Amino acid sequence: MKTLGYYNGKFGELDEMTVPMNDRVCWFGDGVYDAGPARNYKIFAIDEHIDRFFNSARLLDMKMPVTKQELKDLLQEMVNKMDTGNLFVYYQLTRGTGIRNHVFTEGPGNLWIMLKPAEISDGMKPIKLISTEDTRFFHCNIKTLNLIPSVMAAEKAKKAGADETVFYRPGGRVTECAHSNCHIIKDGKLITAPTDNLILPGIARAHLIRMCKKLEIPVSETPYTLDEMYNADEVLVTSSSNLCLHANELDGRPVGGKAPELLEKIRAALIDEFTEATAI
Amino acid sequence: MKTLGYYNGKFGELDEMTVPMNDRVCWFGDGVYDAGPARNYKIFAIDEHIDRFFNSARLLDMKMPVTKQELKDLLQEMVNKMDTGNLFVYYQLTRGTGIRNHVFTEGPGNLWIMLKPAEISDGMKPIKLISTEDTRFFHCNIKTLNLIPSVMAAEKAKKAGADETVFYRPGGRVTECAHSNCHIIKDGKLITAPTDNLILPGIARAHLIRMCKKLEIPVSETPYTLDEMYNADEVLVTSSSNLCLHANELDGRPVGGKAPELLEKIRAALIDEFTEATAI
Repeated sequence: MKTLGYYNGKFGELDEMTVPMNDRVCWFGDGVYDAGPARNYKIFAIDEHIDRFFNSARLLDMKMPVTKQELKDLLQEMVNKMDTGNLFVYYQLTRGTGIRNHVFTEGPGNLWIMLKPAEISDGMKPIKLISTEDTRFFHCNIKTLNLIPSVMAAEKAKKAGADETVFYRPGGRVTECAHSNCHIIKDGKLITAPTDNLILPGIARAHLIRMCKKLEIPVSETPYTLDEMYNADEVLVTSSSNLCLHANELDGRPVGGKAPELLEKIRAALIDEFTEATAI
Repeated sequence: MKTLGYYNGKFGELDEMTVPMNDRVCWFGDGVYDAGPARNYKIFAIDEHIDRFFNSARLLDMKMPVTKQELKDLLQEMVNKMDTGNLFVYYQLTRGTGIRNHVFTEGPGNLWIMLKPAEISDGMKPIKLISTEDTRFFHCNIKTLNLIPSVMAAEKAKKAGADETVFYRPGGRVTECAHSNCHIIKDGKLITAPTDNLILPGIARAHLIRMCKKLEIPVSETPYTLDEMYNADEVLVTSSSNLCLHANELDGRPVGGKAPELLEKIRAALIDEFTEATAI
């Protein structure tokens, strides 16, 4: 298969798959998701992603129709059907199906899976960022399907010829990007926003922190501002789709580029980790 | 038909309708909606709702596939097919269809319609409210499909044996309810939150304000707090599904009941307005 969709037991090419109009995602965006890369038919960091997926569902009182092991097995089975083993492996749970009514439907939710070909960037090429005020809700720690502000921010980046948008709350505190976490390096230290309700606890972020500690690079999980990002030695952008990117431009101004050796050490180590974990 | 769904030209009973998995509502909740009541096959306040619907789409840079008149005609045609003329008439626009990618799809959005039987409450029976902190995003003026916080709040009300949940921002400022606007009466005056980005500009709210002015009841569109609601003479809850309700309990404490004649004057006038506009 080139792409592959799954909905409650049904399979098919994504553009041929349909879902019930009364799935609650259609009326409320009432669901959670998770996703990560596969390479050589091996899904990277799957246990961490599945743990976060189940946690997102728990935080919104949604009932999983499968166990973690069943989901892992199902994902691997689907990955094995694909024409390429280099994939974006995406799964979501919506609360259920029923005539539109805000109060919960009963019973377990609907399980969705979506696979499409994707390659992880090696992170060599710097990216361009813009910033915009973070007007999102206060549940950004949950990976929900209420993503309009991220959609608007991603489009804004595209229109500006940039690759990602940095969100900052009133007062200038940087939270994360439209679909990535972000971090700065200053004076040899990695500074990254703490995992409160304003950011997603990124799995690529967790790998970055663990790798910095392994490389004996100090890590500070503290709030930082857009001004600090403008003046950082390096600006890093991580996500499960692109493990370790760095920026050389923010809002049209040059950023980073002042600690290239440290950056390269981190980038290479993270890409190596991925490459080794997904080796044939 | 008992219920009726529409999606880009296809019609059917709601529980038989399907939509493409790649509709952007499925991945991002990327859409807007509007809705209101019909009685005797007559859709109430349709021009106001359609104006707001088009405005919501404009605010999110979504392209309508129909004109206002075409949508009005389509809605009326569908209402005419129903077994009952007393209905909830709901319509939404999602941004488009495509493999999951935050940046916009090109071209006009997907048009959805959903009709189900519904009766407007006469507003005689008081309702019970609870309150919860408003943790929603800062685009509440747009009627989007990013409704998880409202879903959670509605379920919280149900679990508490209440009918609606009042949202307040940090500091205690009341915004609106999970799926209604709310208002207080104090010393003969209607006080209602101003239409900024924290509340939906409710059409039932607009009718309430116009009616108060007609009845020579002073109206103040200013922020008010939860404490002021606890101590109000009356607490009103309006929505297009239930034009003019009032509460006698908030967070388990009695509220309102101190200006019953004024309340009755407003309630009766609003219900009369609806009844006359939808008379055979």
